[in-house]
Amino acid sequence: MRRFDLLEQVKKQNPLVHNITNIVVAGDSADGLLAIGASPIMASAAEEVAEMAAASDVLVINIGTLDAELVRAMKQAGKAANEAETPVVLDPVGVGATRFRRKVVAELLEEVKFTAIRGNAGEMAVLADIAWQGKGVDAGSGDADQVEIARQVAKKYRTIAVLSGASDVISDGDQFAKITNGSKLLPRITGSGCLLSAVCGAFIAVSPTDAAYLACLEACASYAVASEFAEEKLGSANLPGSFRPVFLDALANWSKEAVQERVMLEERSHPE
Amino acid sequence: MRRFDLLEQVKKQNPLVHNITNIVVAGDSADGLLAIGASPIMASAAEEVAEMAAASDVLVINIGTLDAELVRAMKQAGKAANEAETPVVLDPVGVGATRFRRKVVAELLEEVKFTAIRGNAGEMAVLADIAWQGKGVDAGSGDADQVEIARQVAKKYRTIAVLSGASDVISDGDQFAKITNGSKLLPRITGSGCLLSAVCGAFIAVSPTDAAYLACLEACASYAVASEFAEEKLGSANLPGSFRPVFLDALANWSKEAVQERVMLEERSHPE
Amino acid sequence: MRRFDLLEQVKKQNPLVHNITNIVVAGDSADGLLAIGASPIMASAAEEVAEMAAASDVLVINIGTLDAELVRAMKQAGKAANEAETPVVLDPVGVGATRFRRKVVAELLEEVKFTAIRGNAGEMAVLADIAWQGKGVDAGSGDADQVEIARQVAKKYRTIAVLSGASDVISDGDQFAKITNGSKLLPRITGSGCLLSAVCGAFIAVSPTDAAYLACLEACASYAVASEFAEEKLGSANLPGSFRPVFLDALANWSKEAVQERVMLEERSHPE
Repeated sequence: MRRFDLLEQVKKQNPLVHNITNIVVAGDSADGLLAIGASPIMASAAEEVAEMAAASDVLVINIGTLDAELVRAMKQAGKAANEAETPVVLDPVGVGATRFRRKVVAELLEEVKFTAIRGNAGEMAVLADIAWQGKGVDAGSGDADQVEIARQVAKKYRTIAVLSGASDVISDGDQFAKITNGSKLLPRITGSGCLLSAVCGAFIAVSPTDAAYLACLEACASYAVASEFAEEKLGSANLPGSFRPVFLDALANWSKEAVQERVMLEERSHPE
Repeated sequence: MRRFDLLEQVKKQNPLVHNITNIVVAGDSADGLLAIGASPIMASAAEEVAEMAAASDVLVINIGTLDAELVRAMKQAGKAANEAETPVVLDPVGVGATRFRRKVVAELLEEVKFTAIRGNAGEMAVLADIAWQGKGVDAGSGDADQVEIARQVAKKYRTIAVLSGASDVISDGDQFAKITNGSKLLPRITGSGCLLSAVCGAFIAVSPTDAAYLACLEACASYAVASEFAEEKLGSANLPGSFRPVFLDALANWSKEAVQERVMLEERSHPE
Repeated sequence: MRRFDLLEQVKKQNPLVHNITNIVVAGDSADGLLAIGASPIMASAAEEVAEMAAASDVLVINIGTLDAELVRAMKQAGKAANEAETPVVLDPVGVGATRFRRKVVAELLEEVKFTAIRGNAGEMAVLADIAWQGKGVDAGSGDADQVEIARQVAKKYRTIAVLSGASDVISDGDQFAKITNGSKLLPRITGSGCLLSAVCGAFIAVSPTDAAYLACLEACASYAVASEFAEEKLGSANLPGSFRPVFLDALANWSKEAVQERVMLEERSHPE
């Protein structure tokens, strides 16, 4: 059985998580990282991102709100992180929404090596070049198999693909895990996906270099189980406003025992 | 009697609301839009706003925090929305506070056709060129009649004017509605006006082109009634911190029946 | 005994607090300022900051997320505030984290006269040029005496130094105060230090020019006592998500009587 003890490592090691992120979720992502015991820093000036990324335990690049200057900073930071062997996580928010986002993400994937990429089904389908119907930053819907989308992203970019949604799929291209936990209130709060990307980053930061797949698996499982605790605390399905603070409380109090007991996990090899 | 059923349309249609907004309220506006069932997207890069605005169901431009680059993006997005017949809402945050804001808003009003403009009394008085004493982004105070201010804005800019405050006035230049609902805690949370602008946008997005007046009326009534439910839930008048999550809960659970029952609405023609 | 009545002055006078701040805490700082009865405005366009700063009751400059354009705006605003005799507060967020931040802060300190500077031990040690081990935006740890760090900052920059943490030290270079109140949940929410800087600004804004030391002392004491009330309301030590709204409630309901009764304050002259 999986041990799910990385959440304790994050609390012990307080990894420094450098976020280049958007104006929508910056505060909430920082709150979430603090809740799990990580040490968030947001910095996006071209003059400092390389130094910051190299000094951090992980870099998380989120394209939620972009401008040309920020894109330059993302590339500088990503390259500096690669040189310093700081792992880098990509969150391609709404990549299918505009040609600009697709271009920026293509350039980032060309110039920077990402340890993991986390997106919803619609975003990951764009990266895998698989037909899908997205809308704005929402997941949208499509016929393609989510496991196949994750596998394609993992193989194409030699990365850990984390496709999150009603169920989460984590793939390294050879094997995959599917986690079916999670509160239906999660997508009702802004930036729950963005925060999961940052949490994956924190788990990767406290893992050995070759264990990013496991780190993402544990991050997704711990996060989804915490969201269920929060929903149960509320005792109601439609209180998205109250869900946010209670979910942060749950993240601050998660335990490996709870994850071990609750997780609904399927682990398989991808078919040849 | 008004039916107040647009709130149900928003839940059914999940309109895509493109916001070009400020760093203060971006997250909270997104949370509020999610709560009512709309689909928020924030994008402000000059490279993508035109495409995004044209593909969205409504564009909401908020000048809360500006820079020259963002102003360029606002103009591009507004023009693209006009061409695509995407309705556009303006929130002229603190327009009276600096010459720069007055200049930017004048240019936006010159170059972009707005379906609706929502501001507090001080902001709308500046647009109507009526004397008023504002301070920063607050409404301030003055002797002018708020109905007259709204009428002037509506006529001058051929738009729906939404003047919100202790009471809300909605005018299309010929007729007006006055709504006297609303919690006194609303102005105690940052961005409650900004969110109302976005909610007006969501209601306009699910309405026929010629029904923006009614959409704004219903948006203001539904929003104000929801704030009263939230205040009653708290059972106390001075808990602004707890008010935010509870208000989001109320927005997620509003019903046309509650609005029909609670609304205090006066509808009249403007005197000649 | 200290009277601690400035919190009432803030409620009466609603000082206009101009913040040039970062994307992480902008919303939360505005909420906190609203809670205490101040009137926040965020503006950072080079085209307007000078006018805004001169018209405000205090300017608070926070370097949490920077870019070159924002740095120019900070300098313009700071100089305009100095000319207009608007007090200016500096929050040197993460100043030790990168060379760029150190350079920006050095330039700001060269070009702008600050009434007060608030930072954690690590940030203030960088300003005082005293050895300290920081990490990202966290306080870090070191052997140096915090009172000595505060004294050095106060003397070197002829300012009121506010070093906040598990205990707060306020120094004017000659005398200092040490406050040992405060909830351990405060550092668990993003931007609690940034908000304290803004609160110091609001207290300075309603004080005589020569009373900034007392204003900062009262701000720190009131803030720390409010955080204790919030923690007691929760009845638990590890609910950072629920702490934020409850702390805002406590800020909205603080009283001089509570501060007088609760404050643990040591006031002394610095040794020669």
